[in-house]
Amino acid sequence: MSEAAERSENIPAGKGKEGIPNGGNPEKSKEVSLMDSGPLCLINETESDFDLASIYVSDAQYNRNIYFDTSPEAVRLYLRYNHWLAKVLLYFFILVDLSLALFEEPAVLPLPIWATMLVELLCLLVFTIRLAHYAKVIPRDKFWKDPKNICIIVILLLTLVDMIIYGALKATNCYGVRWSRVLRPLLLVNVTEGRQLRRAFRSIRNALPQIFYVFLLFMFSLLMFSLMALKLLGKRGLKTIDGAPYFTNYLEIVFDLYVLVTTANSPDVMMPAYNSSFVFAIFFILYILINTYIFMSVFLAVVYNNYKKYLKEEVRQLVRAKRHKMARAFAVLQEHREEGGQPVVSQANWNQMVRLVQPDISNAHRELLWSVADDKNQGYIGKVAFVQLVDLLNIEVITLKSRPHPLQSACPALYLSAPSRLLCRLVQHRAFVIVYDLIILVNAVFIGLDEENPMVSNSEWVFLALYLLEILLKLYVFEPKAFFSRHTESLNHLSLMYGTGGYTSRQILDIVFILRVLRLIRVVDSIKRFRAIINTLIRIGPAILTFGQLIIVVYYIFAMVGMELFKGKVKFFEEDSTDPDKAFCGNTDLKGTAFAQLNYCKNNFNNVVSSFILLVELTVVNQCSGFVAVTHVSARIFFILFHIMVVIIIINIFVAFVLEAFFVEYSVDKSDLQTSLERKIEELELAVEQEKLEDNLVNAMETIDNDQGAGQPVDNRPALMFKIASKRYRTVDALLQRMFEADLDPEDFAENDDPDGNFANPTFSSA
Amino acid sequence: MSEAAERSENIPAGKGKEGIPNGGNPEKSKEVSLMDSGPLCLINETESDFDLASIYVSDAQYNRNIYFDTSPEAVRLYLRYNHWLAKVLLYFFILVDLSLALFEEPAVLPLPIWATMLVELLCLLVFTIRLAHYAKVIPRDKFWKDPKNICIIVILLLTLVDMIIYGALKATNCYGVRWSRVLRPLLLVNVTEGRQLRRAFRSIRNALPQIFYVFLLFMFSLLMFSLMALKLLGKRGLKTIDGAPYFTNYLEIVFDLYVLVTTANSPDVMMPAYNSSFVFAIFFILYILINTYIFMSVFLAVVYNNYKKYLKEEVRQLVRAKRHKMARAFAVLQEHREEGGQPVVSQANWNQMVRLVQPDISNAHRELLWSVADDKNQGYIGKVAFVQLVDLLNIEVITLKSRPHPLQSACPALYLSAPSRLLCRLVQHRAFVIVYDLIILVNAVFIGLDEENPMVSNSEWVFLALYLLEILLKLYVFEPKAFFSRHTESLNHLSLMYGTGGYTSRQILDIVFILRVLRLIRVVDSIKRFRAIINTLIRIGPAILTFGQLIIVVYYIFAMVGMELFKGKVKFFEEDSTDPDKAFCGNTDLKGTAFAQLNYCKNNFNNVVSSFILLVELTVVNQCSGFVAVTHVSARIFFILFHIMVVIIIINIFVAFVLEAFFVEYSVDKSDLQTSLERKIEELELAVEQEKLEDNLVNAMETIDNDQGAGQPVDNRPALMFKIASKRYRTVDALLQRMFEADLDPEDFAENDDPDGNFANPTFSSA
Repeated sequence: MSEAAERSENIPAGKGKEGIPNGGNPEKSKEVSLMDSGPLCLINETESDFDLASIYVSDAQYNRNIYFDTSPEAVRLYLRYNHWLAKVLLYFFILVDLSLALFEEPAVLPLPIWATMLVELLCLLVFTIRLAHYAKVIPRDKFWKDPKNICIIVILLLTLVDMIIYGALKATNCYGVRWSRVLRPLLLVNVTEGRQLRRAFRSIRNALPQIFYVFLLFMFSLLMFSLMALKLLGKRGLKTIDGAPYFTNYLEIVFDLYVLVTTANSPDVMMPAYNSSFVFAIFFILYILINTYIFMSVFLAVVYNNYKKYLKEEVRQLVRAKRHKMARAFAVLQEHREEGGQPVVSQANWNQMVRLVQPDISNAHRELLWSVADDKNQGYIGKVAFVQLVDLLNIEVITLKSRPHPLQSACPALYLSAPSRLLCRLVQHRAFVIVYDLIILVNAVFIGLDEENPMVSNSEWVFLALYLLEILLKLYVFEPKAFFSRHTESLNHLSLMYGTGGYTSRQILDIVFILRVLRLIRVVDSIKRFRAIINTLIRIGPAILTFGQLIIVVYYIFAMVGMELFKGKVKFFEEDSTDPDKAFCGNTDLKGTAFAQLNYCKNNFNNVVSSFILLVELTVVNQCSGFVAVTHVSARIFFILFHIMVVIIIINIFVAFVLEAFFVEYSVDKSDLQTSLERKIEELELAVEQEKLEDNLVNAMETIDNDQGAGQPVDNRPALMFKIASKRYRTVDALLQRMFEADLDPEDFAENDDPDGNFANPTFSSA
Repeated sequence: MSEAAERSENIPAGKGKEGIPNGGNPEKSKEVSLMDSGPLCLINETESDFDLASIYVSDAQYNRNIYFDTSPEAVRLYLRYNHWLAKVLLYFFILVDLSLALFEEPAVLPLPIWATMLVELLCLLVFTIRLAHYAKVIPRDKFWKDPKNICIIVILLLTLVDMIIYGALKATNCYGVRWSRVLRPLLLVNVTEGRQLRRAFRSIRNALPQIFYVFLLFMFSLLMFSLMALKLLGKRGLKTIDGAPYFTNYLEIVFDLYVLVTTANSPDVMMPAYNSSFVFAIFFILYILINTYIFMSVFLAVVYNNYKKYLKEEVRQLVRAKRHKMARAFAVLQEHREEGGQPVVSQANWNQMVRLVQPDISNAHRELLWSVADDKNQGYIGKVAFVQLVDLLNIEVITLKSRPHPLQSACPALYLSAPSRLLCRLVQHRAFVIVYDLIILVNAVFIGLDEENPMVSNSEWVFLALYLLEILLKLYVFEPKAFFSRHTESLNHLSLMYGTGGYTSRQILDIVFILRVLRLIRVVDSIKRFRAIINTLIRIGPAILTFGQLIIVVYYIFAMVGMELFKGKVKFFEEDSTDPDKAFCGNTDLKGTAFAQLNYCKNNFNNVVSSFILLVELTVVNQCSGFVAVTHVSARIFFILFHIMVVIIIINIFVAFVLEAFFVEYSVDKSDLQTSLERKIEELELAVEQEKLEDNLVNAMETIDNDQGAGQPVDNRPALMFKIASKRYRTVDALLQRMFEADLDPEDFAENDDPDGNFANPTFSSA
């Protein structure tokens, strides 16, 4: 979408001396040049310095690449720009803007035009304010050079123009098309927060030339096969199942064979020829081998190869930009302990900055991080250790507080008695979990059995009692605060169980129950082989959200176009309708077609919800004969474009991503940095015991086996313990960086040892 | 199938001193030990020595890993065993054995039982003789340790037993099943020549455990979703399109959702729920996302990862075994030029051996190879250079002889006159080719146009005249021998054009014509981007043959079982049949089903041909409802097994292979050795000019642009020129070795510098 801007985002603008970290602020840059010359010592940093440093760090942490002014007002504005509330509001209004399609003609819930128009105007206003805010944060020339800002302005203007035209047309009762609706999802791509999405689009665009060449070859093969089919079969007077002439029109053949690649019309397209002679089957088998199997694999190979190549380059740039930003933050906070020595950052300054960056960080966690950074306990850290901070912050550390059970405080004699302790040990035992897993398994089988059987329906109550017992036992054994924080779901069960009676609530109960059966994954997860697979699946989760956005952008555009083209052409009648039109979906063109016979009437473009569902179906199997029947042969272009865009490109990129994630899982181990943090935790004897450290799915599942809130006073463990959620990542970027860490230039890290301070720039100019 | 044996094949048996190259022959081994001690010089080798050495070399060349006796009689037997005629006969009889299915009940062409039985007995006899021959070649203990020999014996015995039982049953008019027919394709796997196929099966077996774990997770997910579907939808009283209750039976749901993964019943399976409420569509979308997209990608990832890992190991062993065999050949032929010096092989011995290995090699080609091996023109070569020979032999070198045009000899004055030379230059010009490409393109368009139009049908004659002109012009310009060797196809055109008149011949003509249009690939191929893709596609060609065999083995087994299960259940009636049973494929169970409505009657298991075609269809889209209707619900097991075996495993391995081939293409350049041969050719000034050396598809296509037979006497080029068909490989093994060459241990090559001669063994013992 806006590559040039993105690249300039990735490469913080300044190159060489004039673009040194504090570029925009004359006072600051003087300071830096003074520092470079050596003697001056800065001990007291101003508040705005901490603001600036924390912004650099959090920009590095979240991979924001915004070149903002460094004047104190701009910094304050920038802080406000990055405030979570501002972002939530922005995404809320984008969502509102997108969901307007629900209420506009053709609507799910029709609203008057003035109402949707007003809401849309409000959205436009919010986007404009946000953009104006952004314009104030970054230098004017940068703002106008960034294509994504231009894109947003153009989208806003076009939308406004379209609304005026549409309003005028409607006022004069003319036919109007809200064509600017296709522009709406582009906002998702072009807002500053849409980094992941822009990257996905860039990786598509980078793969496009290669895909295009393969596509040309594929089309060549398709056209040749169609020509052969025409000559082989056209003159034989064969009929399709509908009685239409078979393979007599060249363009029809091209289309049929294209659809055969998607396997949607197999074996139907082959049957007339095959019925006439089995020799013709060889033609189709050859075609499927070459075009479905070989060419589709080649598409995947090309997409995967390009995806890997460009992503690697992007992640490399991302890592460089991150280090650059950390170096800037360091330059702001640095001080000289001794004449001519290396600049350092003191613990006090560091603490203040970390508090600003991550206000919710616990003191213990912060101290742990410091002890990792300040290895030799000097009270200050150099640049190398400082730059690591951002990676340390991205490692999720779970702080566990051991607190005594309230019963223990209230009645220690009873709670610490031998039977009570035996009970505690029993409940905490592995066998307890296994027994309940087995109970769930049996329950799952019972759910699947026939409910009419009185034994089965009565068994429900037995299971209910067993689960209740489990909750009570766990409440007794574990500290309630820790228990409730993890067991809100179980409580939901309880409330559901007693809240509503009767049939439907029992059905809901079943569903909730089945969700509970997911606990069985834990059993699966305890087998090492499964764990690698499940871990990878969990890890690709966040990335799937990016692909989800990508898909939504593409679907939305196609849904808008599809609704304009096909709305109202196919009608759906309710099950109990006795309308005679029901047999052909309310369109006489569909009389006797497979579309109507198979009762696909609800697969239509009559509103945005059914459009989206239809587009999912088209992604799986490209069936479009019905829509061609009700409109025109050229409607096929719409479906072919959709297939190329979604199936050939996006799905292949998705598959490429999954493949890459698995190969990384098979080849890369924990990152070094993570291990050093873990080593530190162990060194400080603050680690949760080894067997519980195992980062399997257990931690993510609803269970408290690992919970250190157990009220057992027997061992004198420290009151605070740490544990690395090592297999989980906070951001998609962190995952990607890990994915390519093994391939990254070691020089990217070696740079830190560069003595003359401004290490980032030389590397950046070479990028 | 027989891994242990294969491994022992790969690692030539002898380990340590006792298994030194000449193991079986006491005389020889004495000789070697004498050579090891230094002083003796051997100049005259016996004939059997050359036999032995040439066997080692050709074993290395074709990657045969057979541990044969080295006594002269055994060597002669082994030569006979490897004779091409013996192999052709073997494969002919395997083919006959497999195609017996055409004539056995249920038959395409029914033959009496005694006839097929007799032919099968003959086949069994041939296989037994071949096996007995093999038993004589290799040591007795090796023979009985090799599982693939045991396999063949068991197959032969079981087949015999089955034939006797079946014959007896038929003689007493009892019902009998020829169950041993499923064993037939296993012969393809277990004959000594089935190396590629065994390797493919091994790579499947190696991937199986990993696939199994993912499959368990997939099944878990499938069962959970089915349970949810049962609870969500089972009690709503929904009906399918056939009026059957929808999602009320758990096993039915599991099966329907399994088929949904193959996308065969999308969106049909969703429609009843979706028609009742669009909320249920979310359930199906979630299911498709997780099970169709994510799990199927994970299967691919796992298969690909395993495929790559094990193949690399196998190819590494293959390369080692090859070098080992070459070292043995060297040990047989080696002599000592000077006291205590390195053993060498003289040019005379080398020549004699190469003539034995490759009788059809031209003297010029052999001398070229020698000049590459004997870099310093010493008249003898050392071990390192000798070992290279096998790789040199695998590089296809095209020898071009320039011969004057006969017209030039007959009438030089006319042929060398200015207009004649201008004509020659015109025809040889690039533009001439382009013009004819354009003509073909226009012709292709005309073929696609309506034939009823008189202009179009008359244009045929114009094109015909143009092609005739092209042939005549080329005949005039190029040396006829070179022309005819490449243009037999064009002559076929001519004969076809004049041979038969009337409609059908014109249609055949069109097809031949379209094949001619393939020449257009040349235009595509001249663009560099396309060339890389096309080259890779050509290169994976031979491997596709291996996959073809693999598929045939699996299909054959499923076809045999399928025929026993489903034969005669679905009947096909010819188009013009008026039988009322035609509407439901001759089976009342199919009345009103989609299977009969869509006229799928010819998709049946009634004979082996239609079984194979049906299995291809099932590979593309797994539609089995018809067969379940005519037999029993449990018939689904057959189709699910087929899907797992073919789609999840074999197709994924195929895709993995294509992916890997493309990644290699993108990353690896020509192998070093090949470049050294090319360098030598250029050094000797025997190279075809650079622009013509470009190894694009042109060489493979029907064209004589590059033909050096042009009768132009102007330049004084040498009468003989070489050209490397660098992008083509003789064997699949060579391709695979090239694929992993980049990853192979450099020690594999460094070994050659090992001074103490028997370099192969130490490495082998570590393998």
